[in-house]
Amino acid sequence: MTPRTWRRPPGSPTLTQIARAAGVPVPAVSKVLNGRSDVSSAVRESVSALLREAGYAAVDSEGPGPGRLVELVVSGVEGTWANVMLSGIEGAVSKTGRDVVVVVARESEPSGPDWVQRLIDRGSRGAVLALVTPTAAQHRRLAAAGVHLVALDPDRPPPDDVPTVGATNWTGGRQAAEHLIALGHTRIAAVGGAPHHHYGQARLDGFRSALAAHGLRGAAELERHGHWSRTRAADAVRELLALPEPPTAVFACSDHMALGVFDVAAERGIRIPYDLSVVGFDDLPEAHRLGPDLTTVRQPVREMAGLAADMLLRLMAGEPVRAPRIELETRLIERGSTSPV
Amino acid sequence: MTPRTWRRPPGSPTLTQIARAAGVPVPAVSKVLNGRSDVSSAVRESVSALLREAGYAAVDSEGPGPGRLVELVVSGVEGTWANVMLSGIEGAVSKTGRDVVVVVARESEPSGPDWVQRLIDRGSRGAVLALVTPTAAQHRRLAAAGVHLVALDPDRPPPDDVPTVGATNWTGGRQAAEHLIALGHTRIAAVGGAPHHHYGQARLDGFRSALAAHGLRGAAELERHGHWSRTRAADAVRELLALPEPPTAVFACSDHMALGVFDVAAERGIRIPYDLSVVGFDDLPEAHRLGPDLTTVRQPVREMAGLAADMLLRLMAGEPVRAPRIELETRLIERGSTSPV
Repeated sequence: MTPRTWRRPPGSPTLTQIARAAGVPVPAVSKVLNGRSDVSSAVRESVSALLREAGYAAVDSEGPGPGRLVELVVSGVEGTWANVMLSGIEGAVSKTGRDVVVVVARESEPSGPDWVQRLIDRGSRGAVLALVTPTAAQHRRLAAAGVHLVALDPDRPPPDDVPTVGATNWTGGRQAAEHLIALGHTRIAAVGGAPHHHYGQARLDGFRSALAAHGLRGAAELERHGHWSRTRAADAVRELLALPEPPTAVFACSDHMALGVFDVAAERGIRIPYDLSVVGFDDLPEAHRLGPDLTTVRQPVREMAGLAADMLLRLMAGEPVRAPRIELETRLIERGSTSPV
Repeated sequence: MTPRTWRRPPGSPTLTQIARAAGVPVPAVSKVLNGRSDVSSAVRESVSALLREAGYAAVDSEGPGPGRLVELVVSGVEGTWANVMLSGIEGAVSKTGRDVVVVVARESEPSGPDWVQRLIDRGSRGAVLALVTPTAAQHRRLAAAGVHLVALDPDRPPPDDVPTVGATNWTGGRQAAEHLIALGHTRIAAVGGAPHHHYGQARLDGFRSALAAHGLRGAAELERHGHWSRTRAADAVRELLALPEPPTAVFACSDHMALGVFDVAAERGIRIPYDLSVVGFDDLPEAHRLGPDLTTVRQPVREMAGLAADMLLRLMAGEPVRAPRIELETRLIERGSTSPV
């Protein structure tokens, strides 16, 4: 474990009290408190436990410099998903007195070193990768430079030593379908994201499995891909509505794509939810800015981001991460955009 | 000026061609290119100009470490204003091969040093302050540590040596009022931000001046403060609608507060724009997510942020900033939320 120093909260027990409780001399407590190495690991462990219990905050003894930073590598900064996610990361990271470096992982850099090299050059100790999937070669370079990683919503599983945080996407897709089936819908369409994204694929698979469990057929005919784009989702919905038997309900695999469904409804005079029920996925702020409010599968983005940051901070402190593959619970939030068929 | 190195763009003139154009030997060009100091300032200047003209990008020879970072100090990361602003900063900064540190300036830190100390501790060379106004003491500490600053939309003017970027807020407020007056409205209300914010005050003053120019009286009776909050703006609008002679139009000093006006309209069955015209300020993404789309005064947030970042990069490179107080143009964007009285 990295030696650490401790910060004393106001009103907490004094060193003398801690020393008495641990059955060690005061200087030993002082040594642990200041991250000194000349103290046995048994003493360090028992004193650390008491300090923690007394509300002392452990501080990694990284000193000034890039060590006091946590990197957030993202595919882009714009949009509400990225905004809520950054807020979750920043909230967790700032509690430890650190700041967040925002790094956009561009396919080709206009000038200068790529994002991997920039992290390595500044001696970065850790990064959360949000919707960013490094190549195997990039993973090797980062590992060789000792940059700890946690992946948030990766497109595909990263190397075994990189923990991941996601949502129960499969269950979420299933929840969306179950809700619409319970309302009596039988012609239920789905607008998926990009086919190669695992988290999107899991939503569609969960959706399909619920349909199959209820003996609903012809799902494939009612599936389209919107590639996470509002306009491409709108195109997909126009296609679906042109079918001989159009759907009475649409599951959009993101709230952003659900906006595209609303766009087509507005353009065609289709009344949501009376003529068409719509379920989204994410529960981002835009879910509340529609008329009517969007029924959606809540993905706890802020909590996922905060958890990813917490896991990374543990790794950076040399502590083990116990559950390296975590999916947080999705939940159906029923609002005004769905109704019985 | 800080010694700098240069990066050669593809297809640009060779060193030989640059040397010929400058009338100096090739090694002199090479020296300038590599940021060497053993070259006269006259030669450096003329070669630098030619390199710039040829598309070579100057790179500060900061080396690895915190110098390759630009700090963005914000009051908070959430919301669409912050999101678009971050995108503008990141776009400008990434062109120089740098990344952005996001620093939230909290009034009181739960643990550890305040934001000023964190910048100083990591040897920061520059920060854009967005909606953040340091105290005089904080300004002194930052100046003593050599941290360059540019203020984006400051609450009040910073010290003379800190450049600022804002929007033509006064003109924008005037544009909002002129638009509503041209539509025949005479009872026009305003929902301002927080009274002590200069940029919000300027919007209200511009609004008032247009009313006065058209001989419209009683403006003060129709002014409320929404403190930049959607719910407080809604409260203000409820008050205004309870007046014996309620307004037929409302100018909300931010799009976010305009959402509060829409909330009250939805709750009361008031049809926008037929019963009430609404003008916002900002032109953020939420302006497009309302029914109907919001008429608003566009504040070029992305461009303002990009310009602030560019100015900071110049300061960090030891170059002068020519116009240290810049306001970018606001523009009325007419959409569906306003109509003739």
